[in-house]
Amino acid sequence: MKRRDFLKKAGLGVAAATAAATVKSPLVIASKKYFWKMCTTWPPHFPVLGEGADLFAKWVEEMSDGRMKIQVYGGGELVPALGVFDAVRTGNVEFGHSASYYWAGKAPATQFFAAVPFGMNAQQVNAWFYGGNGLKLWKDLYAQFNLVPFPAGNTGVQMAGWFNKKINSVNDLKGLKMRIPGLGGKVLAKAGGTAVLVAGGEIYTNLDRGVIDATEWVGPYHDYLMGFYKAAKYYYYPGWHEPGTVLEIMVNKKKWDSLPKDLQAIIRTAAARSNVWMLSIFESKNNYYLQKLINEHHVKLLRLPASVLKTLHKYSNEVLSEIAAKDPYSKKVLADYQKFQKDIQEWGKISERALAWAESL
Amino acid sequence: MKRRDFLKKAGLGVAAATAAATVKSPLVIASKKYFWKMCTTWPPHFPVLGEGADLFAKWVEEMSDGRMKIQVYGGGELVPALGVFDAVRTGNVEFGHSASYYWAGKAPATQFFAAVPFGMNAQQVNAWFYGGNGLKLWKDLYAQFNLVPFPAGNTGVQMAGWFNKKINSVNDLKGLKMRIPGLGGKVLAKAGGTAVLVAGGEIYTNLDRGVIDATEWVGPYHDYLMGFYKAAKYYYYPGWHEPGTVLEIMVNKKKWDSLPKDLQAIIRTAAARSNVWMLSIFESKNNYYLQKLINEHHVKLLRLPASVLKTLHKYSNEVLSEIAAKDPYSKKVLADYQKFQKDIQEWGKISERALAWAESL
Repeated sequence: MKRRDFLKKAGLGVAAATAAATVKSPLVIASKKYFWKMCTTWPPHFPVLGEGADLFAKWVEEMSDGRMKIQVYGGGELVPALGVFDAVRTGNVEFGHSASYYWAGKAPATQFFAAVPFGMNAQQVNAWFYGGNGLKLWKDLYAQFNLVPFPAGNTGVQMAGWFNKKINSVNDLKGLKMRIPGLGGKVLAKAGGTAVLVAGGEIYTNLDRGVIDATEWVGPYHDYLMGFYKAAKYYYYPGWHEPGTVLEIMVNKKKWDSLPKDLQAIIRTAAARSNVWMLSIFESKNNYYLQKLINEHHVKLLRLPASVLKTLHKYSNEVLSEIAAKDPYSKKVLADYQKFQKDIQEWGKISERALAWAESL
Repeated sequence: MKRRDFLKKAGLGVAAATAAATVKSPLVIASKKYFWKMCTTWPPHFPVLGEGADLFAKWVEEMSDGRMKIQVYGGGELVPALGVFDAVRTGNVEFGHSASYYWAGKAPATQFFAAVPFGMNAQQVNAWFYGGNGLKLWKDLYAQFNLVPFPAGNTGVQMAGWFNKKINSVNDLKGLKMRIPGLGGKVLAKAGGTAVLVAGGEIYTNLDRGVIDATEWVGPYHDYLMGFYKAAKYYYYPGWHEPGTVLEIMVNKKKWDSLPKDLQAIIRTAAARSNVWMLSIFESKNNYYLQKLINEHHVKLLRLPASVLKTLHKYSNEVLSEIAAKDPYSKKVLADYQKFQKDIQEWGKISERALAWAESL
């Protein structure tokens, strides 16, 4: 942008323009202030997720020297927790902080940018975003809704969940009432289970009273905070249904396009910092709270049997194929996702997997 | 910083200050320009590493709206490739881009912030930096040298290297002449091999002519570019000696302290973006070039035998203990590093490792 255009766009009067012009060095820049809002799907300052939103706002304000101030709202404070997409799409709110699988009702393909059962982990999905076609495919989809998306965090591999009965075979999933949303719930249904919708605040009581037989939530840190270890016997791994859930920041596209290039770069970069920050905090907290669950609360950790995982994997592929069959954009995204995953898993075998094995000898 | 201090620090004369004061809205900010240099250890625009340095400079310039321009120099262009630490320490150059294991001669503990044989992978080491004590320990060490460090990239798990003889047992390492620098070289020496120093440009010829029996480099992408598949028979994995090498950006501390808070935040955030960007590009490129090496050049991939890895692991622990025994700060860093690694590996077993296993069924 030329300096003259910049001054004009910033809405400076003649006097100010003259004043600026008389100062040769150091440069004087006329700056517009932006007071923007961010609505989120999380309770205010929710561990890691809400904290990530707060930090993002702090970083943007610091980097812009206060030219952009973002007020962060918890779910329900400004708009409902699951009203984020619409609030930002229509421009009522400039920023949203959420996870894209909540918008499956708007466009089925949104789910593939958050979590895919038996899909890519955090490191792989970031390689798809930044080094493959992932982010481009996501941007193109969101542009149809007047939105600009950014990957802004990752939970890492989640846990399979808390169960009050042992899962020894796929038969044990039949009739199982489990709180498990999204694609994971559809996969459970194929195995004869019942995916139940329970609001966050009611899961513990439902589990404790036997209204549900099982629940998934996030990982050791968040699960500890929910106290599930007091209401369930077994803690199963791995989180096949959410192998590395991506958190998103979305911006209203019209408002985004109106921003000067430096603020766009600041937002883009703060989102990337949030991406690596959030995964790192998840990993270190999960590490710490796993030890606490095992040592202080004597939680029984169990791995889902191979036969169960194998069957769930097969059902997952069916669920994904069914979505792709009905929606051309889902088909396109899924094809790219699965090709990338297949290749990077080959590389992962001789890098990450072989290393972990070598270190365990 | 108060506005008055800011104007004073920016070195504005009375005229400029008055001019700025007459403009009420939008805010007029007086801005000093910074033309800083960055010296790097890599050839100019070197794939991923040098490109990461270039992008960092671009991002900082974009975010600061041109208030900070960084000129990036390849190794030898401004100072020698391994003169980065001293050039930045003394303030001859403001920024450096390198890897901290090159500075073992300055302080042995620097090595633990780049790569530890049988140490943490990228995801784990980032958790240690951002969620544990890693970055604080690194900062405290570098502050003694008038430097401020930032993690700014990661190679991911490297490959064990290219060999012209098979490694079936530890005995096959005896007398082996291998290009392998740093701690890996010390471990090889314990196994009876000879770690040879060879400059990057001469490795291929030395390998081709049998002057050396083996070499490590980076991973499939960089190794492909070096053409090693034409000079060696076997490509071994995993890269036990560099399980996730951290790239660093360093800033002269005095110059850093003189920067306004917004530019400090911009640099810190750009480094974090570079951290996730570089690992993602490494992963996607290694993925692509591994397929190319296998399918187009019929490279023979071999895994180091368990007995060899087990012995190398034992020798690695000895090498690390010897460093810790001689240097108190190394002892402190290593104790924190190894405690964090032990715990996060427990979590990794039931998250990343269990997931990778489940997906391979």
